Amino acid sequence: MNTELVIIGTIRSSIKERANAPKMENEPGAVRARIEVAPQYAEGLNAMEPGTQLEIYTWFHKSARDALMVHPRGNMNVPKRGVFTTRSPNRPNPIGLHRVTLVDMEGPLTLVVEPLEAIDGTPVIDIKPKPKQMG
Amino acid sequence: MNTELVIIGTIRSSIKERANAPKMENEPGAVRARIEVAPQYAEGLNAMEPGTQLEIYTWFHKSARDALMVHPRGNMNVPKRGVFTTRSPNRPNPIGLHRVTLVDMEGPLTLVVEPLEAIDGTPVIDIKPKPKQMG
Repeated sequence: MNTELVIIGTIRSSIKERANAPKMENEPGAVRARIEVAPQYAEGLNAMEPGTQLEIYTWFHKSARDALMVHPRGNMNVPKRGVFTTRSPNRPNPIGLHRVTLVDMEGPLTLVVEPLEAIDGTPVIDIKPKPKQMG
Repeated sequence: MNTELVIIGTIRSSIKERANAPKMENEPGAVRARIEVAPQYAEGLNAMEPGTQLEIYTWFHKSARDALMVHPRGNMNVPKRGVFTTRSPNRPNPIGLHRVTLVDMEGPLTLVVEPLEAIDGTPVIDIKPKPKQMG
């Protein structure tokens, strides 16, 4: 089984450091950002329409993958708990999920989206429309 | 950058074939199923509480990863479009996202969840609580 991810694109954002990134996209600090898709995946964007609600899957490449117990939201005053009961970026497979609106396409390979809290340079591993009828 | 996924668990389900699986968890055919977590990730389940809404991330190991244009929902009567405008399991990184309720824990390593449409044997790559306040 091939479980090696391919990087399909990269986040371009004014948020440059993890310390400055909000923890969730609905918290203050999430910004309008760009996703630059690699040219070999251009066809995958065919029929992409501004206004669509998208799920952006990212790879938190700066995360600690050996963390199994973490302080929720990094708060040392709260006892550690299992990483699968939290949304910590430090986890065995550090996949980020970001719900955004596609504001615009800038040429065939660049998506303008908001609000996004991921830092500049974050690898993108998937883009999907938000499911219909789902909470 | 290490982008090799680790398999943290496996789906155990009465749905044995992809042909029998519904396309979405809110369609008829999704069932109560089990997630068996690998023993080395047991700590990650610490403080996991039944009743929690979870996101289960899976790896569609039977998918075609070279698909960039697909017929929506596999319907040949609908023109092909970019895979990133669909939720097709055939995509460069075939990550599945499933919203479920944790019904029960059966011992320290087995989660009972519903409704789940993934087939028996599907690898699990992450488990996260559903974000608060999110649509």
